[in-house]
Amino acid sequence: MIILGFDPGLATLGYGAVKSERGRTELLDYGVVLTPKNENLAVRLAMLEEGIREVIEKFAPDEIAVEELFFAKNVTTGINVAHARGVLLLTAIKQCGRIYEYTPMQIKQALTGYGKADKHQIQQMVKTYLRLKNIPRPDDAADALAVALTHAQTNKLGGLFSI
Amino acid sequence: MIILGFDPGLATLGYGAVKSERGRTELLDYGVVLTPKNENLAVRLAMLEEGIREVIEKFAPDEIAVEELFFAKNVTTGINVAHARGVLLLTAIKQCGRIYEYTPMQIKQALTGYGKADKHQIQQMVKTYLRLKNIPRPDDAADALAVALTHAQTNKLGGLFSI
Repeated sequence: MIILGFDPGLATLGYGAVKSERGRTELLDYGVVLTPKNENLAVRLAMLEEGIREVIEKFAPDEIAVEELFFAKNVTTGINVAHARGVLLLTAIKQCGRIYEYTPMQIKQALTGYGKADKHQIQQMVKTYLRLKNIPRPDDAADALAVALTHAQTNKLGGLFSI
Repeated sequence: MIILGFDPGLATLGYGAVKSERGRTELLDYGVVLTPKNENLAVRLAMLEEGIREVIEKFAPDEIAVEELFFAKNVTTGINVAHARGVLLLTAIKQCGRIYEYTPMQIKQALTGYGKADKHQIQQMVKTYLRLKNIPRPDDAADALAVALTHAQTNKLGGLFSI
C-alpha cells in the first residue's frame, strides 16, 4: 500500500510518500511545495493546489494521512496554515477519497510511544524506521513522513487486532 | 458590474450578489451554502467547493469580495472558518480571478462611516442601501451583502478619485 503524508503549511507544505507491505515500510520520496510570501493569498492557495495535485498524481497513494492543526502560538501563522489545510483536504479528497487525520500527539505516540516527544526524537524515529542515512530536510518533509509512518503503524495494528 | 460577496464559514457560508452601475447598487440575490455538522471535514470542504462554484457560475461576477478572517473567540470555530475560507479563495480565484478582501473594520467603516458599528447597524445599512423591506436572513447572507456593498462603495470612491 502506498501512503502519502502531508504536513500542511502555506509557505512550505511538506509531503512524504512511503510504501508499506507486510509490516515493512520503505521510503518512496519526500519534498515540499513552496509558495512565495510576496504573492497574494488566493494565488498562493492556487499554487498549493497545483503542487498537491501533482504530488498525488505522481504517487497515486492508496491512502493519505494529514497532520491535524493545533493552534499555533502565532495567530496569523495559524490562520495561514488553516487556509492551506483547507485546500489540502479538498484536493486530497477529490483525488484519493481515503483521508486520515492525526493529531501531533497521536504522531508522537505512534512513533516514540510517548505523547510528549520532541521534534528531534520524532525525526530520529523517521530516520530509523525508514533506514535512512540522514534526517530528511526540511522539517516539513520530515513531519510529512512522520504522519505517513503513523498511518502505516496504525494500519498495522489494525491488521493485528483484526486477526 | 456584478459583485459577489462572500462571508466564509464551514457550516454556513453566506453569499450576496449585487449589480452596481453609475453609483447605484441593486440586489440580485443572496443565500447560503450549508454543510452538515456530522460529516467529516474533507467531505464538507468538497461540498462547499461545489456550492461556491455553482453560485459563481450562476452570477458570473466581474469581481468577488470576501470578508477577511479575524480570529474568533472560539479557536475551533476560527480554524474551521479558515479551512472553509481557503477553499473559498481557491474556488473564487480559479473562476473569477478578481478577488478583493475586506476586514470587518473596513466593512463597518464603508457602510456606516464608523469602524466600530455593531452587527445590527451594518444590517440596517444593507437594507437601506439595497432598498429592501427587511433585513436579509440569515446573518451570513446579510454579512455577504455587506462585503459586496463595501466593494461597490470602494470602487465608486476609486472612480471619483481617478477623475
